[in-house]
Amino acid sequence: RVTSAVNDALIERGEYDHFMLKEIHEQPESLARSILPYIDQATQTIQAGDTASDIFAGADRAVAIACGTAYYAAHTAKYWFEQIAKLAVETDIASEFRYRKPVLPVTGPALFVSQSGETADTLAALRYCRENKSPAIAVVNVPESSIAREAKAIVPTHAGPEIGVASTKAFTAQLAVLAVLALSAAKARGHLKAGDEAKYVKSLLSLPRKVSEALEVQPEIKAIAQTLTKAKDVLFLGRGRYFPLALEGALKLKEVSYIHAEGYAAGELKHGPIALIEQDLPIVVVAPYDDLFEKTLSNVEEVRARGGRIILISDDKGIKLAGNRADHVIRLPDADEIAMPILTAIPLQLLAYFVAVAKGTDVDQPRNLAKSVTVE
Amino acid sequence: RVTSAVNDALIERGEYDHFMLKEIHEQPESLARSILPYIDQATQTIQAGDTASDIFAGADRAVAIACGTAYYAAHTAKYWFEQIAKLAVETDIASEFRYRKPVLPVTGPALFVSQSGETADTLAALRYCRENKSPAIAVVNVPESSIAREAKAIVPTHAGPEIGVASTKAFTAQLAVLAVLALSAAKARGHLKAGDEAKYVKSLLSLPRKVSEALEVQPEIKAIAQTLTKAKDVLFLGRGRYFPLALEGALKLKEVSYIHAEGYAAGELKHGPIALIEQDLPIVVVAPYDDLFEKTLSNVEEVRARGGRIILISDDKGIKLAGNRADHVIRLPDADEIAMPILTAIPLQLLAYFVAVAKGTDVDQPRNLAKSVTVE
Repeated sequence: RVTSAVNDALIERGEYDHFMLKEIHEQPESLARSILPYIDQATQTIQAGDTASDIFAGADRAVAIACGTAYYAAHTAKYWFEQIAKLAVETDIASEFRYRKPVLPVTGPALFVSQSGETADTLAALRYCRENKSPAIAVVNVPESSIAREAKAIVPTHAGPEIGVASTKAFTAQLAVLAVLALSAAKARGHLKAGDEAKYVKSLLSLPRKVSEALEVQPEIKAIAQTLTKAKDVLFLGRGRYFPLALEGALKLKEVSYIHAEGYAAGELKHGPIALIEQDLPIVVVAPYDDLFEKTLSNVEEVRARGGRIILISDDKGIKLAGNRADHVIRLPDADEIAMPILTAIPLQLLAYFVAVAKGTDVDQPRNLAKSVTVE
Repeated sequence: RVTSAVNDALIERGEYDHFMLKEIHEQPESLARSILPYIDQATQTIQAGDTASDIFAGADRAVAIACGTAYYAAHTAKYWFEQIAKLAVETDIASEFRYRKPVLPVTGPALFVSQSGETADTLAALRYCRENKSPAIAVVNVPESSIAREAKAIVPTHAGPEIGVASTKAFTAQLAVLAVLALSAAKARGHLKAGDEAKYVKSLLSLPRKVSEALEVQPEIKAIAQTLTKAKDVLFLGRGRYFPLALEGALKLKEVSYIHAEGYAAGELKHGPIALIEQDLPIVVVAPYDDLFEKTLSNVEEVRARGGRIILISDDKGIKLAGNRADHVIRLPDADEIAMPILTAIPLQLLAYFVAVAKGTDVDQPRNLAKSVTVE
C-alpha cells in the first residue's frame, strides 16, 4: 500500500526534482485546504468544532504532546494559546511525557499532534491521558489513523499525502490548524472580541497568498544555501513565537543536509552556546519585527562581534532596523502574530532543501530516517 | 569586590591546574554543606522551611524558571516533583518566560534557580510573578542577592564561591537543594510515607561519599577524553530524569571545549537527529539502570548500527546489560532516583574538563562567556 502510494505520487512529482521541493511549493493550497473547513466566510468567524470548544471553555490548563517537527508546531501554538486564549499549555515530547508519570490538567485537554496519526510514542501518550480521564484532541493529517480514532475530538489537517521524509507542508498545516484551535479556545473562554476574530480570520485567509509571496524568495535562498554547504555547524536563533521556528529550522537542516544545526532561544545564547561562535559560523536569525525584535538584535550584535555570519529572516521593518548587521537577509511579507510564524517556515524549508541539494544528499529519503516512527 | 574574591580563591587553587577541576573535586563537601541544613538526622526527616512547605501544600501546580545550567537543574527537579510530590511543574527558560505573558498557577509557586542570584532574565521573571501574586521560591548560592531578597522563600545552596565560569559544584548543589524541596513538597502534600522519607534522607546523606567514589573514575574519563579531542560533534542522550543531564553534559562540553555538543531525549533520536550519525560520531549515553534502561539500550543499538561510538555512563547493572554495545563505559556507584542524577553530573563535568584541557582552551574563562549574566 505504501509502495503504491509512492508510485502514484511519483507520477505527480511533475516539474520538481524532489518531493520535498514539490511539497514546499504546495503549501499555498495545502494551507487553504487546512484552514477553510474551520472558517465561516460569511460571518468571518472560526469554528474548530463544538467538542473542542466545550473542552477549552472549562479548561484549567492544557498539555500538548508530539514528536520531532510536530512537537515544534505544538511549541509554537503554546505562545498563541497563552497570549490569545489565556490558557497555560505545557508542551512535552511524547517519549518523555509517556514515561514521566505526568500530573494532568484537572479539566483541560491533552493535545496530540502527528502527521501520520500513528507515531508510537504520541499514541502511547494519548492512551495514558485517556486512562487518566483527560480529554484528547488530535491534530492529525490522516483522519482514519489510530490517534484520530482514539481521541475525543479530531481537528484534522488537510495537507494531503506527504512523501518527503522531512516534513514541510504537514508542519505548516499543523500550525494553521493549531492557530484555529487557539483562536477557538480564546472564543470559548471569552477572550476574543468579535473585531479581533474577524481580523484573525482575515489573517488566516491571507496565508495562501502570503506563502506564495514568501516562496518568491527562492532564488535568494538558493544563493545563500551555496554559502552554507561547507559549514560544519549552523546555529538558529529566535525569541518568543519564533523560538520554536528556530528549532524547526535547525531540525530541517540537520535532517536533509546532515549539517549539525542547533536551535536556541536567543536569550540563552550568553548562557553557554555563545562559546561556539567563531569566525564565519553561520547563524540564522528568525526575527520578524515584534516587541522582542530589539532584544534579538542585541543578540545579533554579540554574535557578530565574535565573527558570526548573520542570515536574517525578517520583514521590511526588521530588515531596515537591522541595517548592515545582517550579512544576508531573507525578506517576508508583513503578517500578524498568527500568520508570521507560519510564513517563516517557508525560507527555513527552502534553505534546508537547497543546502541538501548542493551537498548531494538523498533529500527525500535522508539517511537513517523513516517517514513515520511507528515503533519506539 | 569580585577581584578580591578571585584573588582569595587563587591562593586556594592549591594542587589543581584549574578552578574547574578544583571545584569538581570540592563536590563531596559542597554537597554536604548544601544538604545538611535541611536534614534532621535525629528524626531522619527533611525540612525545607515552613514557608516553602506551606506554599507547596496548597499548590495547584508550579513553574520553575532559570537560565543555562541552572535551567537543567530545574528540569531534572521537574521529574522528582511530578513523581514523588505529584505536583505538575512546568519549566521554562527565563528569557522566554518573562516575555511570553505566561498564565501562572493559581495557588502554586514559581521556583527560581540561579547561582549568582543576579541573572537578569531570571530576576525579571521573578518580578513578573510577584506582580501577578505568585509566591516565589528562590534557590540561590548568594543569599544576599537580588533574587534572594525579592523572593518569598529562600532555600539557599551552600556551594561556596564558584570561580570557574562553567558551573559544576553550583549545579550539583542546586540539584541537591531542589531534591530537598521536592521531598518537602511531597511531605506537605501527603505523598511521602515516613519510611520513604527516612530512605531518601539516607540517600541524600550518602551523596558526599558516593560523589567521592564517582570521582575515582577520573583516570578512565581522562583516557576517554583523549579520544574526543578531534571530534567535530558529540551527541548526548538520556531519558527521563537523565534527559536534562544529557543536556547539561552537552552544554558543559560546548562551553569549555568549543566542540558542538548537543543533548537529546533518546526517544527523539528517530525524529531527526539520527540523520547526523556517521562512522565514529561519539555519543555519550547517560543511562544508569532504571525502568527506561531497555528503551535507551534499543536507541544505543540504532546508533551503533550506523557507526556511532558509544560512551556509556551507567551503574553495574546497566553496564552488564549493555555488554559489548558500549565502546567505553564509565561506572558509577549504585544510587536511587534522587542521588543518581546528581552522581551522573560528575563524569559529565570531568569529561568536558579533560577534553578542554587536551584541546588547550582557557578552561576557567572560556571564550565569549561571563560568570553571571546580569544583563539581557
